[in-house]
Amino acid sequence: MTRTQLIAAIRRKKSLLCVGLDTEELLIPEHFRAESHPVRAFNEAIVEVTHDLAVAYKLNLAFYEALGDQGWLDLEATIGYIRSKGDCLIIADAKRGDIGNTARKYAEAFFDLLDVDAITLSPYMGKDSIIPFVGREGKWAVVLGVTSNAGAEDVQFLELKQGGTVYQRTIQHSIGWGTPEDLMLVVGATRPQVVAEVRNIAKDHFFLVPGVGAQGGDLNAVLDAGMTKDGGLLINSSRGILYAGAGEDAIPAARTAARGLQATMALALLEKGVLDRSSVG
Amino acid sequence: MTRTQLIAAIRRKKSLLCVGLDTEELLIPEHFRAESHPVRAFNEAIVEVTHDLAVAYKLNLAFYEALGDQGWLDLEATIGYIRSKGDCLIIADAKRGDIGNTARKYAEAFFDLLDVDAITLSPYMGKDSIIPFVGREGKWAVVLGVTSNAGAEDVQFLELKQGGTVYQRTIQHSIGWGTPEDLMLVVGATRPQVVAEVRNIAKDHFFLVPGVGAQGGDLNAVLDAGMTKDGGLLINSSRGILYAGAGEDAIPAARTAARGLQATMALALLEKGVLDRSSVG
Repeated sequence: MTRTQLIAAIRRKKSLLCVGLDTEELLIPEHFRAESHPVRAFNEAIVEVTHDLAVAYKLNLAFYEALGDQGWLDLEATIGYIRSKGDCLIIADAKRGDIGNTARKYAEAFFDLLDVDAITLSPYMGKDSIIPFVGREGKWAVVLGVTSNAGAEDVQFLELKQGGTVYQRTIQHSIGWGTPEDLMLVVGATRPQVVAEVRNIAKDHFFLVPGVGAQGGDLNAVLDAGMTKDGGLLINSSRGILYAGAGEDAIPAARTAARGLQATMALALLEKGVLDRSSVG
Repeated sequence: MTRTQLIAAIRRKKSLLCVGLDTEELLIPEHFRAESHPVRAFNEAIVEVTHDLAVAYKLNLAFYEALGDQGWLDLEATIGYIRSKGDCLIIADAKRGDIGNTARKYAEAFFDLLDVDAITLSPYMGKDSIIPFVGREGKWAVVLGVTSNAGAEDVQFLELKQGGTVYQRTIQHSIGWGTPEDLMLVVGATRPQVVAEVRNIAKDHFFLVPGVGAQGGDLNAVLDAGMTKDGGLLINSSRGILYAGAGEDAIPAARTAARGLQATMALALLEKGVLDRSSVG
């Protein structure tokens, strides 16, 4: 999915929502657990009721790898199902990062075999671990800039001799490795002042923003700090949507949760002038 | 595999060799490609002729993920085959690193489901991304300290205001997150002076050392710089062993290559006093 297509989806759906499919078999309602492929069936139900509200889906690889080869099949099936719904960016949240020949293999695994649009990457190993993922039309490297967890402070917030912090310098490097057409940054929601500061470094790049909801990030603060004239943000919610309700209520509650986030986003997009007033329903 | 068992294997095999199974279907000899599971068959042949010379095997996940669910089955089968040979440490080279609940899922996927002994991890997200992997007897977190690639300089070699570099501070942090019983460090072979310097920071921890061979690292320089009284190093060779020969010669050539590395290691272990002179055959 190209940047132009992504921006069109944002305008059409009036949304910056990314639904995180961190699906845990033990947490999904019992009636799905009776299915032959519980995770897949639950994911499809979630996608069915959110795809008009979400511009992106993020699949957290850990949750599929924990199910072995069956998990890999669930992953493939879920990606196929999302794809069938049209104009949604599909992100493999894999946080890979390795030397060139290995990175090329990961690019093959994710972009060609799994056919996702985007993959999250860790920048610790530098330029040659990122380059194999950029330069392909409609494919995205999503590089960790500053993450939403407490441990972010251990490495990312170290102060540099040259001034600034590790995450600032890493982000300055990263935006030189790709363009706003093929590289996004992960910028956690839990420190809104940091979102604003990263927006000053990377004015046109999309940010994938985790940490709203279960991790405590404030949606409106993130929208204020990070939005651009193109939207510029993909704001992820995983547990807040997947586990919004229990039993038979799980799927309707997921839609309600997604709808609430999307409505807040639509208002912000309108206020920022990304949407014409006439286009907002 | 516990540290005590690992050290016993090093002494018994007179080796610090880790064989990297970065197996590419296109690069393996034709007679394996005719098998129903080519990668698995090739891996088993390699393990068969190297397990008396190697104390560890490292499986690079990218090469298996690039084959989809079949790759995952190859991975499981290869791990089972190595396990059947006894006293070899099995490392999943996955370079994962994510927030706590995701890290716990990865620990489940790798330690419980795949039943590997060790997993490589990226420290960019800090303490809470590493903690779920430590504290389990016989299981290891292998944290990236300083890597063997050129891109290492982009982030790892940045100089800090407090003195030292990002990789030095990251390593100081990392060794506080685990013990020499459950945490190792990845220390690339391509900068031997750095190996010596990291040894001064982490005196008892094992180092997993990639970069000898195809990437240009010098084996004797690494042995001089990093060995301890327990051995203290696992030195990886992937392409130098897997693709040492072609066609029918591939497997014998792999053994010859592994034997050459092991012989150099045995001599160094003897000189360092890790082995008694009487025990060296």
